[in-house]
Amino acid sequence: MSGLHSVSHSIEFTQALPLKSGAVIQSYLLKVQTYGTLNANQSNAVLICHALNASHHVAGLDEKTGELGWWDNMIGPGKPVDTDAFFVIGVNNLGSCFGSTGPMSIDPKTQQPYGSAFPLVTVEDWVESQARLADYFGIKRFAAVMGGSLGGMQALAWSTMYPARVAHCIVIASAANLSAQNIAFNEIARNAIMSDPDFYAGNYYAHQTRPRRGLRVARMVGHITYLSNDDMAEKFGRELRRAPGAPNTYNFNFDTEFEVESYLRYQGDKFANYFDANSYLLITRALDYFDPAREFDGHLSKALAGVQAKFLLISFTTDWRFAPERSREIVKALLDNKRTISYAEIDAPHGHDAFLLDDLRYHGVVRAYFHNMLQDLQ
Amino acid sequence: MSGLHSVSHSIEFTQALPLKSGAVIQSYLLKVQTYGTLNANQSNAVLICHALNASHHVAGLDEKTGELGWWDNMIGPGKPVDTDAFFVIGVNNLGSCFGSTGPMSIDPKTQQPYGSAFPLVTVEDWVESQARLADYFGIKRFAAVMGGSLGGMQALAWSTMYPARVAHCIVIASAANLSAQNIAFNEIARNAIMSDPDFYAGNYYAHQTRPRRGLRVARMVGHITYLSNDDMAEKFGRELRRAPGAPNTYNFNFDTEFEVESYLRYQGDKFANYFDANSYLLITRALDYFDPAREFDGHLSKALAGVQAKFLLISFTTDWRFAPERSREIVKALLDNKRTISYAEIDAPHGHDAFLLDDLRYHGVVRAYFHNMLQDLQ
Repeated sequence: MSGLHSVSHSIEFTQALPLKSGAVIQSYLLKVQTYGTLNANQSNAVLICHALNASHHVAGLDEKTGELGWWDNMIGPGKPVDTDAFFVIGVNNLGSCFGSTGPMSIDPKTQQPYGSAFPLVTVEDWVESQARLADYFGIKRFAAVMGGSLGGMQALAWSTMYPARVAHCIVIASAANLSAQNIAFNEIARNAIMSDPDFYAGNYYAHQTRPRRGLRVARMVGHITYLSNDDMAEKFGRELRRAPGAPNTYNFNFDTEFEVESYLRYQGDKFANYFDANSYLLITRALDYFDPAREFDGHLSKALAGVQAKFLLISFTTDWRFAPERSREIVKALLDNKRTISYAEIDAPHGHDAFLLDDLRYHGVVRAYFHNMLQDLQ
Repeated sequence: MSGLHSVSHSIEFTQALPLKSGAVIQSYLLKVQTYGTLNANQSNAVLICHALNASHHVAGLDEKTGELGWWDNMIGPGKPVDTDAFFVIGVNNLGSCFGSTGPMSIDPKTQQPYGSAFPLVTVEDWVESQARLADYFGIKRFAAVMGGSLGGMQALAWSTMYPARVAHCIVIASAANLSAQNIAFNEIARNAIMSDPDFYAGNYYAHQTRPRRGLRVARMVGHITYLSNDDMAEKFGRELRRAPGAPNTYNFNFDTEFEVESYLRYQGDKFANYFDANSYLLITRALDYFDPAREFDGHLSKALAGVQAKFLLISFTTDWRFAPERSREIVKALLDNKRTISYAEIDAPHGHDAFLLDDLRYHGVVRAYFHNMLQDLQ
């Protein structure tokens, strides 16, 4: 892990976890990666919650895969979330497919992969499992719980479910629930997967196959929503995909004609090779279901009445998946409750993906926020 | 056809049609519907060009299917395009699937359906076929060529390919080419269709099946881009799909949970039952390829240098498929050429679909424009 002090953990939890759906997971494993050192009074811990397709591997080089952590530009020694000062925890969520218990895992009851028998987990269930993880590390209160997109929803849920355990809640490029359009995109992705004949009602493992075609379409759909219209225009425009020297004219067929097609196909194929379809279904559904205001007749202010954390919210101007107005809804609800909030709307061209990218102003805000946090700690 | 004077035509063209791709269609049939009466000097003809999934049946009640024409609110006696004054022609495009020659038709060479052997046709090829249709009716110059979305692209192509044959060019909710994001959505739709095992490389007719799963996903993707974000929020929000009296709580499964899912599935299924997959591929590709500025190094002003028509352009504020800025690009290019233009940007909540809907201001603009046109005719 390249200079960065990092430890891998596989932690077995044997106390049954009751889920929001009514189902119960009897025991489960969480795959965890920690960075830096927990201080003597356990006050410097930062929990990083991941989005749809990410994992516990938030920073540093994975020696096995040769890949950098998904938030490596944000987290590490001297980085905005400085692992020289903070103890950072990355955890692969229950139901995902990077080592924590999920649909690909063996169901102890049947000795077969769970497949479609794996229960639906919600954002709140993830928070419960993460609270037990905090207990495991002896952390009573996080310096910060932080996440982008679906990760931001987990951070928000932490602030309402365990108000006393979150000093700072950092919610980036997120929303307090999905819009109808967001749900519609998820539904298309699920429909593509579930209608793939290789899906076998979720039990494709037994058939030594996976619904690659459906996953590919699902990822392509997702990808469009991660990029801004302008960003796609800038990156691809109407450029044709042509070998050097080949004539720059239409081929009049359905093969890859445009650069943007080539890009989407590549992203779709790559994803179909590494991501589990059942996990994709489950995590998109967790996104659909998240809606803390639901139990309060849609009043987000009421849903957030009990939060104690201080908040940092960040949105990006060209993000049309979770547009700035969705962050402002949270800001308003927190202001209604007279909470302490910092809110930054970053003028960035890269759409929803901006939360994963290096951006001077964005990282400057996070760096300053953690710097101030550190003063409070000491 | 309910009070409206309307005539169905099936017109065989036996002169070979050379296509932009280099392929040639030896003979073809166009399915045409006309409304009203052509005047003595053939000066009152209006050609209506259709978009992706529409047809020649633009107005009135079809007695066989019981369906109203797709632009019935716009076209008819006393309507904005008044068939008491104008002779309106609706034509099903070559390559489509509502009676004109297309992939479902029998290839005279093989006596089998064309299937994937049907050549790719472009917007310009459609204009050529429509020019022959004009010749058939003895129309030297259209009072107007009019269309929305892909139909608007055909109208625009008419104005450059046959400048002397178009008195007025009416381009609604359209663009001078697709953006990278537009192409990306088309690519996803095509990918869903072509990866459906029932697609059989386009020759599914021989297998007595059709790629329903792929078509369904394709239509769901399309549908999201036709509606505005606000419109979906207004229509569906996060409402659950529940039988009367059923508890308004999550079911924790992948069945239809939300109203928006139910709506999309319904639209997808309906479409998969009536539209031909090969036509869908072909027409989305015609959309991708359309780009009159391409031969002029991307300079739309140069591409439109030869147009003679007067223009009416209309866009809708919440249309994110072909946003107002795309219409303004055309307006600018026409102004560069000192053409006569009327441009209306209609504040309407319904996204791209707005061009098909009844809207007082929108229809008022079209009504006034045709009224003025009539003064010139007389």
